[in-house]
Amino acid sequence: MALASTLISELQRLLGAGEVLTCKEDLIPYSFDGTAALRQMPGAVVFPKTTDQVVSVLRLANQTKTPVVTRGSGTGLSGGSLPSPDCLVLCLVKMDRVLEVDRANLTLLAEAGATTQVIADAAGAAGLFYPPDPGSMKISTIGGNVAENSGGLRGLKYGVTRNYVMGLEVVLASGEVLWTGNKCVKDVAGYSMRDLFIGSEGTLGVITRVLLKLIPLPPAKKTLLATFNRMDQAAQTVSDIIAARIIPCTLEFLDRTTIRCVEDFAHVGLPLDCEALLLMETDGHPAAVAEEAARMAEIARANGARELRVARDEAEAARLATARRSAFSALARVSPTTILEDATVPRSELAGMIRFVEAVAQKYQLRIGTFGHMGDGNLHPTFLTDERNAQEMHRVEEAFKEIFEEAIRRGGTITGEHGIGVSKKRFLPRFAGDAQMRVMRELRRVLDPNGILNPGKLFD
Amino acid sequence: MALASTLISELQRLLGAGEVLTCKEDLIPYSFDGTAALRQMPGAVVFPKTTDQVVSVLRLANQTKTPVVTRGSGTGLSGGSLPSPDCLVLCLVKMDRVLEVDRANLTLLAEAGATTQVIADAAGAAGLFYPPDPGSMKISTIGGNVAENSGGLRGLKYGVTRNYVMGLEVVLASGEVLWTGNKCVKDVAGYSMRDLFIGSEGTLGVITRVLLKLIPLPPAKKTLLATFNRMDQAAQTVSDIIAARIIPCTLEFLDRTTIRCVEDFAHVGLPLDCEALLLMETDGHPAAVAEEAARMAEIARANGARELRVARDEAEAARLATARRSAFSALARVSPTTILEDATVPRSELAGMIRFVEAVAQKYQLRIGTFGHMGDGNLHPTFLTDERNAQEMHRVEEAFKEIFEEAIRRGGTITGEHGIGVSKKRFLPRFAGDAQMRVMRELRRVLDPNGILNPGKLFD
Repeated sequence: MALASTLISELQRLLGAGEVLTCKEDLIPYSFDGTAALRQMPGAVVFPKTTDQVVSVLRLANQTKTPVVTRGSGTGLSGGSLPSPDCLVLCLVKMDRVLEVDRANLTLLAEAGATTQVIADAAGAAGLFYPPDPGSMKISTIGGNVAENSGGLRGLKYGVTRNYVMGLEVVLASGEVLWTGNKCVKDVAGYSMRDLFIGSEGTLGVITRVLLKLIPLPPAKKTLLATFNRMDQAAQTVSDIIAARIIPCTLEFLDRTTIRCVEDFAHVGLPLDCEALLLMETDGHPAAVAEEAARMAEIARANGARELRVARDEAEAARLATARRSAFSALARVSPTTILEDATVPRSELAGMIRFVEAVAQKYQLRIGTFGHMGDGNLHPTFLTDERNAQEMHRVEEAFKEIFEEAIRRGGTITGEHGIGVSKKRFLPRFAGDAQMRVMRELRRVLDPNGILNPGKLFD
Repeated sequence: MALASTLISELQRLLGAGEVLTCKEDLIPYSFDGTAALRQMPGAVVFPKTTDQVVSVLRLANQTKTPVVTRGSGTGLSGGSLPSPDCLVLCLVKMDRVLEVDRANLTLLAEAGATTQVIADAAGAAGLFYPPDPGSMKISTIGGNVAENSGGLRGLKYGVTRNYVMGLEVVLASGEVLWTGNKCVKDVAGYSMRDLFIGSEGTLGVITRVLLKLIPLPPAKKTLLATFNRMDQAAQTVSDIIAARIIPCTLEFLDRTTIRCVEDFAHVGLPLDCEALLLMETDGHPAAVAEEAARMAEIARANGARELRVARDEAEAARLATARRSAFSALARVSPTTILEDATVPRSELAGMIRFVEAVAQKYQLRIGTFGHMGDGNLHPTFLTDERNAQEMHRVEEAFKEIFEEAIRRGGTITGEHGIGVSKKRFLPRFAGDAQMRVMRELRRVLDPNGILNPGKLFD
């Protein structure tokens, strides 16, 4: 059933007619997110500009038991902001102000719709640093980053979004506004509601403001790129770097398929016959950076690196990083449908896991390009496929299942940074177990008794 | 009512008679924790040695609706492990093994009863570092640290216990065992149950195993001690250090009362007529440490430091740190009752907050020594009083109330690292607000429907 016309007119009254979309052609751009092969038309899209407007929309939705799907820019990769049928899409992109950069307390306060890039820039302008850098950061919103607990390329050294969230303003399904957290480095008064909302994928409340922790900008950085004939050499390089007590800010890899697609796309001069590429970055004090870069180069060479480039300046560093930054776009070009996964294992299991993914690709006759965050065990096996080929999609499904089972078997997780959303719902029970599934469902019911927030996601 | 004899014999059958205490003189040591003026006799104390035994004890307690208070070494400062009348004390100190140090993944797995010191030592033996260092670390257990989300002296740079917990084994009130988290740096599969248990003060489940993140041991460290005629000079020194983009691992202060007590106790040669002492430590790469230490010394001098000592070696660093490490013991000697508080404010509010505490001490004619973590705004105003003096204790109560109100007014929290327990229960509603209190109560009911775990704490 479509949304009632009385509901639409009430929304228009609350937000202004221009902030409520209902025509089919206007709704289409909001019928999907960054996840392949998932589409669903919403009933309406609304654009609140203030927390008070979010409150009034949620009150109305809760009274009428209308499903609400909150979204920012819709870059998610697990269908977390995919509409449910005829739902209300609550799009927060017009709440996009950076409200404060507090240099004394090293914090930044922003509305949920501010993009990650704008936040990183605002921090940078104050000589400060907001480390989380999800691949989508140029367009993804901070509210979406918090809801999905986004990662990025700097996770090994700097952690993920959760590690930088100090406080949240959240509107509950009831319309109540909670403020959880503050500018204190230490705070242990009561349960950490903040941490419960982080990563809850829009199912527990609507995040409207985010208070972030900033750190001083590292004064120096050095970027290295190494290629290896064999994947094992790259994996051993990573192990040896950690064993040398070096925690680089970036330790990224590409496999052969990805290297070829990237070279074809970006022409950075990569050798096409090597099995692995490692992008390594160290940052911090200039002396530490110089020593760590030299040590990493030495370790890569000792493990048989075929070629090793050390960036001499910022421009060359950016060029080297292009190889990794363009991996997804490069893979996405070569087939009609690209399905990006993020099975994650403890770092020590990574080499074995990569081999497993390769074997699965062979077994199911699929093309998989794998790249990702080697330092933190976060793999992105990317299926190059075609959603119109039902028979192949079935094999993709089977391959997924094997990969996730293997990740769990190796002490890993079914999603490192993309979330469960709809695309991994069916794998969650096996990962979380019965007791945890029950508890999560009941926690959800406490915060959203009518189940209006992002229904059909996670375990719903 | 005392515990039923059938319950006692069942416990003896489950754990062995030697692991169940019921005689009054055996119970007395478990009738209090580190919090002043709080005592309550339990009905029995049990010492499980395995998770399975914890499961069977909780099943029994849940069936019989017997209140259970979990404790480690009982060093808590908010009454979090104070028994409720005739409860069962579940003491985990016999589950004290370090089970694994994983050098490839930089993790450590321990049973909840292992002391923080043993964990720090096990990490150190592998050339690794477990940063959280609560004052009680020599005897406090890691399970207690996690349940209270303990802080310490290194919070500014390294964060608190929460930042190092990767996984938890938790036994729910029902006896179900949950494992939440893993060795992956990134994991976003479902709500972070782990973060909900951290800091939940024993009210949501019994933590039996803890998987911790370790980091490489910083290769160098430098310790400085500065004294100032006026508190404002110390506060300005801290602000200037942060403004210079230096994040020292330690920025601790003592006020005049504390300095005098420490000198009297430890004879470290401190000037008795100065208003403030700052202990500063920087760690990391030797070049960074040398530069930061020189810069901090310069900033302290520019702000009128009266005396500045720079430790030449490890032994001298330890001597300088003694001034801060012995603060609580030194204060505790001078009066029958010492009440240690931990009101916390954003760093920029710290100087004003210290002045406020001084004014409150004068107003209520109380003796308060204040020390604490100046870098992270975490104050420890310590009341030197006598619990037998009802009239003075009433003034202490009133003074507390004013201090907490002021901390909240300044955007701070009523507890930075000690927890709510019983001693701050009455201040929590004002801090958390109605909606958050209701949600926390309901979350608790999901995990512990019969309310057997640590009843009467937090908001109960």
